[in-house]
Amino acid sequence: MRNIEITGYGYYIPENTVEFRGQVRHRIPQGSSENQLSMAVKAAQRALENASLSINDIDCIVSTSAVGIQPIPCTAALIHEQIAKGTSIPAMDINTTCTSFVSALDVMSYLIEAGRYNRVLMVASEMASGGLNPNQKESYELFGDGAAAVVISKSSDGVSGVIYGMQNTWSEGAHDTEIRGGLTGYLPKNYVEGSEEYYFDMKGLRILKLVGRKVPKMFDEFKEKSGYSVTDVDVIVPHQASKALGMIMHHLGIPEGKYINIVPQYGNMVSVAIPHALIWGIENGKIRKGDLVLLLGTAAGLTANMLLLRY
Amino acid sequence: MRNIEITGYGYYIPENTVEFRGQVRHRIPQGSSENQLSMAVKAAQRALENASLSINDIDCIVSTSAVGIQPIPCTAALIHEQIAKGTSIPAMDINTTCTSFVSALDVMSYLIEAGRYNRVLMVASEMASGGLNPNQKESYELFGDGAAAVVISKSSDGVSGVIYGMQNTWSEGAHDTEIRGGLTGYLPKNYVEGSEEYYFDMKGLRILKLVGRKVPKMFDEFKEKSGYSVTDVDVIVPHQASKALGMIMHHLGIPEGKYINIVPQYGNMVSVAIPHALIWGIENGKIRKGDLVLLLGTAAGLTANMLLLRY
Repeated sequence: MRNIEITGYGYYIPENTVEFRGQVRHRIPQGSSENQLSMAVKAAQRALENASLSINDIDCIVSTSAVGIQPIPCTAALIHEQIAKGTSIPAMDINTTCTSFVSALDVMSYLIEAGRYNRVLMVASEMASGGLNPNQKESYELFGDGAAAVVISKSSDGVSGVIYGMQNTWSEGAHDTEIRGGLTGYLPKNYVEGSEEYYFDMKGLRILKLVGRKVPKMFDEFKEKSGYSVTDVDVIVPHQASKALGMIMHHLGIPEGKYINIVPQYGNMVSVAIPHALIWGIENGKIRKGDLVLLLGTAAGLTANMLLLRY
Repeated sequence: MRNIEITGYGYYIPENTVEFRGQVRHRIPQGSSENQLSMAVKAAQRALENASLSINDIDCIVSTSAVGIQPIPCTAALIHEQIAKGTSIPAMDINTTCTSFVSALDVMSYLIEAGRYNRVLMVASEMASGGLNPNQKESYELFGDGAAAVVISKSSDGVSGVIYGMQNTWSEGAHDTEIRGGLTGYLPKNYVEGSEEYYFDMKGLRILKLVGRKVPKMFDEFKEKSGYSVTDVDVIVPHQASKALGMIMHHLGIPEGKYINIVPQYGNMVSVAIPHALIWGIENGKIRKGDLVLLLGTAAGLTANMLLLRY
């Protein structure tokens, strides 16, 4: 076990909502002064406040967002400018798209365990609404904006920690979830009005099929290697990928009531979905200190992450 | 020390060159079929070949590029598709802009030391030429395209390893090196002909001043904490940031002949510059097995990384 604990958390979700078939999505309205950075800053500040820490207590800032704010510099440096200017705290992005938070938690737990850092601030923020394609109903109705942040620290209680982490990437699905344009693949200067290359493109059915073929096998391997079963786990925090969440959980043998499903209230907030659902679970009394929590999700790539955590 | 070793390396630099005042830059010509991904793939394949490994021997693929290929999925997943399709090798991006390779080497050395992964393929690739602004002479004449890849493995000789790593970020410099447009800060759909927001923007003099104020102090701290002096180090591999490299090295008390300077031949290849200079040093007999090597560089952010490695 890697001895870390979550010592602070916070999120920020824009007030503005839109509704599709009774499902609510929070989205920054056009022309608002809110943006990906302002949401990241609010979530980070709330996490620090919740941890009763100042920024000077943090020794690394990690952005775990899927889509960045600028191609250069990295998103963590831009967050640093808003909350840590004048310090020399290192800033870095770790990115596996939707599961970036889980990957970063997994990775940083090794650095904390080894004593490299004592307290790491991880921030995910997404303004998905800026990249949605109105012609793709499924994704257009699914995504929401928001930010979530967590402070992880070296734990001393011998209870809290990362028990087991695992990541797989199956690039058969590399083009099932994409925004192709905006960086070097399709340069912004080549944008022409109406070009769909610069918008979110999701092939929901293809993803579901690939997930069905790959994730159950990985889950079996995860359970075997970690030595824990679904029965041992108190709460499962899945990526809030889509309305098919219940179907996927059923397919993995995870009973209703054991996992957090807030898709109807928030939709898929990309990399924010998992940390937000984790915090939502804590704040709503679903996750208590000492609980065995399984973070689990798929991401564009296709990547899947599973991480067992003693909260 | 974290017991890792470099067991394979390779790079790919486009043949096409341009010259500015006697300095050579390699750049993919317009209309070429080469791109950031094809360069990454060639470098990765050469690193695997050099290591006498197949992709199945690798247990993690890390993209250490500054600028990505697509906003979604992460760059490592797109590289995975070309070289590791059909496998389940995890793919992840680690980004601190120009020093991403050093950050990723630093981070992944903890995971290798802890036994999480045994062999990690790290790939940096940059097509800087696509984002240069002809109105900014300094950066327009400085940057080059290319890719470099390295395989790092758990070492068993008790000699090779990462001795000490350090990163600082000073966000006073967050806007001294930027590409502002292409992601959520300035969405591609808002691009208008002639808008400079979507191009590389570098304030060279401001960076130099900030580097001069921050990096020597950090270097003193690094030497003190690592317990090594410049005299102990065999070769210094700095980021090939600019023609001012010699001046900065002098300022840090690093004598000529002790550091690799290939700015006249290659310019600044963003995140590729450090791994390429490291490989260039090995291939040209400047770096020999057992040498104490210091990787050192600054990145947009402003971030600085220092990492002491027994090769």
